[in-house]
Amino acid sequence: SLGLKRAEITHGIREVTLCKDNNGKIGLRLHSVNKGVFVALVNAGSPAALAGLRFGDQILMINDEVVAGYSMDKVHGLLKKSPPEKITMAVRDRPFERTVTVHKDSTGHVGFAFKNGKIIAIVKDSSAARNGLLTEHHLLEVNGQNVVGLKDSEITRIIEGGGNVITVTIMPSYIHDHVMKSMASGLKKLMDHTIPDV
Amino acid sequence: SLGLKRAEITHGIREVTLCKDNNGKIGLRLHSVNKGVFVALVNAGSPAALAGLRFGDQILMINDEVVAGYSMDKVHGLLKKSPPEKITMAVRDRPFERTVTVHKDSTGHVGFAFKNGKIIAIVKDSSAARNGLLTEHHLLEVNGQNVVGLKDSEITRIIEGGGNVITVTIMPSYIHDHVMKSMASGLKKLMDHTIPDV
Repeated sequence: SLGLKRAEITHGIREVTLCKDNNGKIGLRLHSVNKGVFVALVNAGSPAALAGLRFGDQILMINDEVVAGYSMDKVHGLLKKSPPEKITMAVRDRPFERTVTVHKDSTGHVGFAFKNGKIIAIVKDSSAARNGLLTEHHLLEVNGQNVVGLKDSEITRIIEGGGNVITVTIMPSYIHDHVMKSMASGLKKLMDHTIPDV
Repeated sequence: SLGLKRAEITHGIREVTLCKDNNGKIGLRLHSVNKGVFVALVNAGSPAALAGLRFGDQILMINDEVVAGYSMDKVHGLLKKSPPEKITMAVRDRPFERTVTVHKDSTGHVGFAFKNGKIIAIVKDSSAARNGLLTEHHLLEVNGQNVVGLKDSEITRIIEGGGNVITVTIMPSYIHDHVMKSMASGLKKLMDHTIPDV
């Protein structure tokens, strides 16, 4: 299905090229986890969104400089001094994430409950239980569409409208909370929630 | 390479069939994490090892019974009452794990340090840094060979003898410590460390 394809995670490395917008911004907020540099926010409509960067992507290199172990100040400095017309990045596809595909039952349920985007319960003998969905994980995407920062009611609406087969992208909450640490809730509202091209 | 192939993780679901040994054992120790049931120990030479079960595999069903949310007592009871000649399991391939492939430099180093199997440092501009290896992760396999419970010196020897391209299988230490919780160090020595057939 298209949702499954949009949600595909390869864990592979790709090259991304982007340029700054008229204000000199690329619309990306990063956070360091375990000596790696991770995408915490992709602003809707920004150069980063257009280049296909996603929440949870790991930035390995910027303009051929390896950024492992860099502080956020150092990475942001590196981006600031980059030429506006061409920034290249080596990016590993969302290493902390995985997908689980579930099917709706005759009542339209897939079998899990969530609160503030975090999976808190799995329904006995449901499709979520049979497919091994876990609690203590955050919902990041539904059929490949980013839902980070959306209200639970909005996520529910996306699941309801997503057809009989739903692919959810999840990340352990322990890591999610690291990546999102100290991000103002107002910022989360800027997150790109468009459906990715496949 | 063969190591890369042996280390492949699909995150997919497979069916496994096994029978008990003469003592009524299958050689498997499980642990519950986030309402899921995970393989914490596969005894060398046991029916579980022969059936290809691996550390970190998630057991979804046993004899068609969905085990999500089960206590360890309940799962062990289910295995105990299973017919000795045929136990079927639905297994998800190591959901918390991923692989990173690194290359040795001219001095034979791949660029990370570990202690008690846990990655504690990444060398600046090394292959490990370029490929996004992270600290706070445990080394589980080297070229697909399980190294859980081995001494650091033994893991180092396996890496040294593993050729110029090394694929390591890693898991966040936070999850690793959950799965291994309350396992006696004597038990870890029983772990299957054979090289998997490909």
